[in-house]
Amino acid sequence: MEFFFDPKGVAIIGATPNPFKGGNAILRNVMGGYLGKIYPVNPNYQEMEGLPCYGDVRDIAEEVDLAIVFVPAAQVLDVVEACVARGIPGVIIESAGFAETGPEGRILQDKLAEVARRTGIRIWGPNCMGLVDAVNRRIFSFMDPRALELGVFIPGNVSLIVQSGMLSAGFLVDIMTHGIMGISKACSVGNKVDVNECDVLEYLTNDPHTAVIGMYLEAIPDGRRFLDLCRRCPKPIVVLKGGKSLKGAEAAMSHTASLAGNRRIIAGALMQAGVIEAHDFKQMMDLCRSFSYVPKACNGCEGKTAILTFSGGAGILTADFLDELGLTVTELSPASRESLQALFPSWMPVSNPVDLWPALERFVGTDTDVIKSALKAVLSDPNVDAVIIHAFAGNVRIRIDLADAARQMAASGKPVFVWLIGRSDMTSQYMQDARTYGIPVFQELYRTVECMASVIRQPRRSKAMERNPHMATNVAALTKDLSLLLQVHQGPLDEFVSKKILKAHNIPVVEEDIVEDAQAIDAVARRMGYPLVMKGLQPGVIHKTEGGLVALGIQDLRQAESTFTVLMQKMNERGKVLIQKNIPGGLEMIAGLLRDPQFGPCVMLGFGGIMAELFRDAVFAVAPLSLDDALQMMERLQGKRLLEGFRGLPPADREELARILVALGNVGLMHPRIHEIDINPLILARGGAVAVDATIMLS
Amino acid sequence: MEFFFDPKGVAIIGATPNPFKGGNAILRNVMGGYLGKIYPVNPNYQEMEGLPCYGDVRDIAEEVDLAIVFVPAAQVLDVVEACVARGIPGVIIESAGFAETGPEGRILQDKLAEVARRTGIRIWGPNCMGLVDAVNRRIFSFMDPRALELGVFIPGNVSLIVQSGMLSAGFLVDIMTHGIMGISKACSVGNKVDVNECDVLEYLTNDPHTAVIGMYLEAIPDGRRFLDLCRRCPKPIVVLKGGKSLKGAEAAMSHTASLAGNRRIIAGALMQAGVIEAHDFKQMMDLCRSFSYVPKACNGCEGKTAILTFSGGAGILTADFLDELGLTVTELSPASRESLQALFPSWMPVSNPVDLWPALERFVGTDTDVIKSALKAVLSDPNVDAVIIHAFAGNVRIRIDLADAARQMAASGKPVFVWLIGRSDMTSQYMQDARTYGIPVFQELYRTVECMASVIRQPRRSKAMERNPHMATNVAALTKDLSLLLQVHQGPLDEFVSKKILKAHNIPVVEEDIVEDAQAIDAVARRMGYPLVMKGLQPGVIHKTEGGLVALGIQDLRQAESTFTVLMQKMNERGKVLIQKNIPGGLEMIAGLLRDPQFGPCVMLGFGGIMAELFRDAVFAVAPLSLDDALQMMERLQGKRLLEGFRGLPPADREELARILVALGNVGLMHPRIHEIDINPLILARGGAVAVDATIMLS
Repeated sequence: MEFFFDPKGVAIIGATPNPFKGGNAILRNVMGGYLGKIYPVNPNYQEMEGLPCYGDVRDIAEEVDLAIVFVPAAQVLDVVEACVARGIPGVIIESAGFAETGPEGRILQDKLAEVARRTGIRIWGPNCMGLVDAVNRRIFSFMDPRALELGVFIPGNVSLIVQSGMLSAGFLVDIMTHGIMGISKACSVGNKVDVNECDVLEYLTNDPHTAVIGMYLEAIPDGRRFLDLCRRCPKPIVVLKGGKSLKGAEAAMSHTASLAGNRRIIAGALMQAGVIEAHDFKQMMDLCRSFSYVPKACNGCEGKTAILTFSGGAGILTADFLDELGLTVTELSPASRESLQALFPSWMPVSNPVDLWPALERFVGTDTDVIKSALKAVLSDPNVDAVIIHAFAGNVRIRIDLADAARQMAASGKPVFVWLIGRSDMTSQYMQDARTYGIPVFQELYRTVECMASVIRQPRRSKAMERNPHMATNVAALTKDLSLLLQVHQGPLDEFVSKKILKAHNIPVVEEDIVEDAQAIDAVARRMGYPLVMKGLQPGVIHKTEGGLVALGIQDLRQAESTFTVLMQKMNERGKVLIQKNIPGGLEMIAGLLRDPQFGPCVMLGFGGIMAELFRDAVFAVAPLSLDDALQMMERLQGKRLLEGFRGLPPADREELARILVALGNVGLMHPRIHEIDINPLILARGGAVAVDATIMLS
Repeated sequence: MEFFFDPKGVAIIGATPNPFKGGNAILRNVMGGYLGKIYPVNPNYQEMEGLPCYGDVRDIAEEVDLAIVFVPAAQVLDVVEACVARGIPGVIIESAGFAETGPEGRILQDKLAEVARRTGIRIWGPNCMGLVDAVNRRIFSFMDPRALELGVFIPGNVSLIVQSGMLSAGFLVDIMTHGIMGISKACSVGNKVDVNECDVLEYLTNDPHTAVIGMYLEAIPDGRRFLDLCRRCPKPIVVLKGGKSLKGAEAAMSHTASLAGNRRIIAGALMQAGVIEAHDFKQMMDLCRSFSYVPKACNGCEGKTAILTFSGGAGILTADFLDELGLTVTELSPASRESLQALFPSWMPVSNPVDLWPALERFVGTDTDVIKSALKAVLSDPNVDAVIIHAFAGNVRIRIDLADAARQMAASGKPVFVWLIGRSDMTSQYMQDARTYGIPVFQELYRTVECMASVIRQPRRSKAMERNPHMATNVAALTKDLSLLLQVHQGPLDEFVSKKILKAHNIPVVEEDIVEDAQAIDAVARRMGYPLVMKGLQPGVIHKTEGGLVALGIQDLRQAESTFTVLMQKMNERGKVLIQKNIPGGLEMIAGLLRDPQFGPCVMLGFGGIMAELFRDAVFAVAPLSLDDALQMMERLQGKRLLEGFRGLPPADREELARILVALGNVGLMHPRIHEIDINPLILARGGAVAVDATIMLS
């Protein structure tokens, strides 16, 4: 991938002297900053913008390892073949007219993919804006050179990967002209015929100029590789995923599938991989900016926050937001309270939020910088993990010395976030000044607190990286029969067989047995002890309760025998009867496995009964799970307090539940034909966890 | 209140020629726009800014009905007494130095309150920014006249009431200099010694220049009057309430109180009064702006939305947000699809979200205005209730004819909301242009959809206005004993007495009786029928279950008699035994009443059992409730599907439940000494609703 970002010579195929064409824009953009050799390619010209022009890329004798292509779609294939012939390892195709335009374009694009596969040439695009490197000032894009004159690309340490071409252009113009965030690389990957977000992410992970990675993605086709790369990347990654509301799984039969929905799986997968999930475009940029300035602040702290404000009202609302986002309005220590008190009139006792107005009024026109002193006082307070300051552009009394604030933030290692309102002309200058000092400033109060909370509550990447190394040892001794069944069966397996398979993979299941005739009941019953549960297993019938095929609380042999007769009749004598040991009470959970089209096998955990149906309280993680992943799933349940022991139930054995979830994921990885597993209920009882009913679906 | 907004002569007490003082700023601001007579008052000058100056307000011979006061706090009282003597009906005190500065200031302020009460003079402030009327250009405020030169107050139809002085200044400067929202009146009410948000709200309700009212409030001390005014106001009201996270009720004994928390009560009260609740400062302004342009759009419609975009990615995210906020990405009708298709290349089938880019490219440089035509097509579609357009400032291809869009929006009566990104210089111009045409434009996509959803889903004000006229008829025939008890008792009443009182107010309660000795059991039991429930009632013990004082499933007389003995022993023979009819299954709810310090008696409804404790699924409304209010409470429950009949339970009788909630509210209004009522559980069973356990707390 190096040749895309740091090429040793760039050919621009489709370059033109016509200033209204994209081919000219690319040439001028490349010339505007790239320091290596540049070769315009166009058979109609000898010379262009003062450079010798080549009729064919094969005519270039000197070193060239990147071609930027901007010719009509119909000519692209020939041009790429020429690049292959010239030995150029990478091309960026910015022309449109491929899969996005319908079936014909799709065919062209498939041919491009084939060339990449066959020859090994790396193809970036087509239908993309290319890439911009603001640090090295390489603009490998057809964006309007006039737009570039309007604003400047401020070099920074945030790199972006944006799937949508128009959006990446929009983002760039927005970022450039507002001037509040520095950029390292902005990559528009377009139709992703070959190079995709994973390739770019891998490159950026090792890029010394990139400290934060922001992405807007619509599809993550190679979801598992993507998550793995995120997991290994030590830099903060912020992802905005479009298209989360599609209701793909709604018609599915089992709870596991119907509780899924893209949104929850994506949220679970990203969290598990240590990624920060954004929910809007500018919010994504704001999160990136925050991480760019305050990458590791306060990691693992409680988020005890001091608020310095000029308005009691804004202080109150800030406190509301801190509470909402799980941070704390801190109790200031006596020492810092005393330092602050020295700034205030004696009648005003200091408390947090600190309303600085009386102090600001008191020292107006003097040399005392109230905000500087107050910031020093709170940052040196051991009860303070972070500070929010309210600023007002256009009021000299509420002036913040941003250089000093930056120094204090760096020295203390505690994040300082600023909320700003005021005169429109001065706010934009303020935002730009804050950028040069690396102070995160926002004009919406909620956004200020939200970004600070994200920085403080970064997902624990290192823990997420402890993967499960014991997967192989979990491979169980499946009987030949079961192995065969997993290879040939289609559709749902009955609960008896499903649980046999789960048991073989170390998932505890209820004690149960099939009885073929009434005579066999007594022996089974004696082994298990009354009361018993009896179920009719009929091929293809999943919902046994609705079919009247479940009998609970069988108290003695006579009742068992008559139940047997009734069940067999209901099934027209064409089913089997299952006898189960009764599990007396416990916490009903649902656990399962499903295959997500993007992320592959995912494990689900939720509460059973009413909780599942009303509150849809379920969480997901991508297999394989580490034990920590599984424990984290429990933390993400809304009703997690149920696990702590509730209404007479003992606390759940979280370790045991975690082992079951890990095992479920491994079953999914080991047996690709298992499309879905639904354990409902999984009862957490005094004697341990036990799968009472389960269905395995084979595809 | 008229004299504050449209005075017949204004005295400025504390006026000064010193341009660095607030007294000069007020004078110059008033002179800058107010057309009536202006009387500076200051004993040290004969003349000021070209006007004759008065030594004392009593020296003014001509008509004057408003005084703006800006003298040191210590002199304010004398000045106000002088105004009273002069017969001036209203004063705005903008000086600080009152309650906000501590005990001494509090005493001064109390004296002001006393003057207002005694003499009837209306006092606005102190410690406030006064008021600004942008339509009539009356600036009765000390805000910096230079700030006024920077921006202009654009006359509009949004009026603001802001409690915090500094914030109101901040808001005004922000609004003025950004120029994206027109303002009618901005009122800073400060310490509210006399005139408060209710007085101003009442005035604005009748003000022909005000169409939308926005408020930032920290306290609503006169909560009931406030809600009543909101309810009667036919104009959209947007309220941002600070200080919602205070955890006042946490230590309370009953579920009713512990489920409260300010946040839920405020949300319930505002919704009930038809108020739109905002959650952040700029978001409040954005909501006001939306209502200012699109006040009644699409009321009651389903929110079927067409999306016109230049970027598939942004279209997808917009669809996600619509889904999240309960609106629909509409299915376009064949007719509008056909009109749109004419704009597109034939290979591209049109669907919603409509990605206009291929059409924009196709007609670039021609006279065809693709966006105009597309907007026309979707607005004329009966399947479309609202439209979101994505705009890009700085790309000529994506130019929206805002004048045309405004005409089309007005003609169709359907809201058109615009999301804008792009060049910073052009976005601010764009926002201002959009203001002149009355098109709501936002730079955050989520905000765009959120504001549109708010306009579409306005609370049903008219329904909320149907108050409960039958309250008086609910007054029940309380026995003398119970009446006396309600007058003299303190603390909790036992469940037997509590339910007697509830029953007397037409709230159905479980059949039950007290037995004094074991001999009495048989007669009671024969009347109710086994199985029975028996409880020990011990003075002061509320949590009977934890105390082992509840026995369920009593099957016969022998068991009942032995239970009696056990219960009496547990209570050291100092309690009573209650026998209750068994209620066999049903949906467990919690209902209650509490007194909120701001809103008075509030009714609570929630689900019982696990739902209450884990999900805190409870809603509130302010008494008295209309039947519709009570029905709306059920709609607001997260788990409302439980009411539709769940797991074998029949659908709840919502009308009956509503009548109980209405009655609970009335009990609270009729008996001011009732501090709290907690019905837990209220069982919705096949035979109807029944309060099974209840506690009334008297204060």
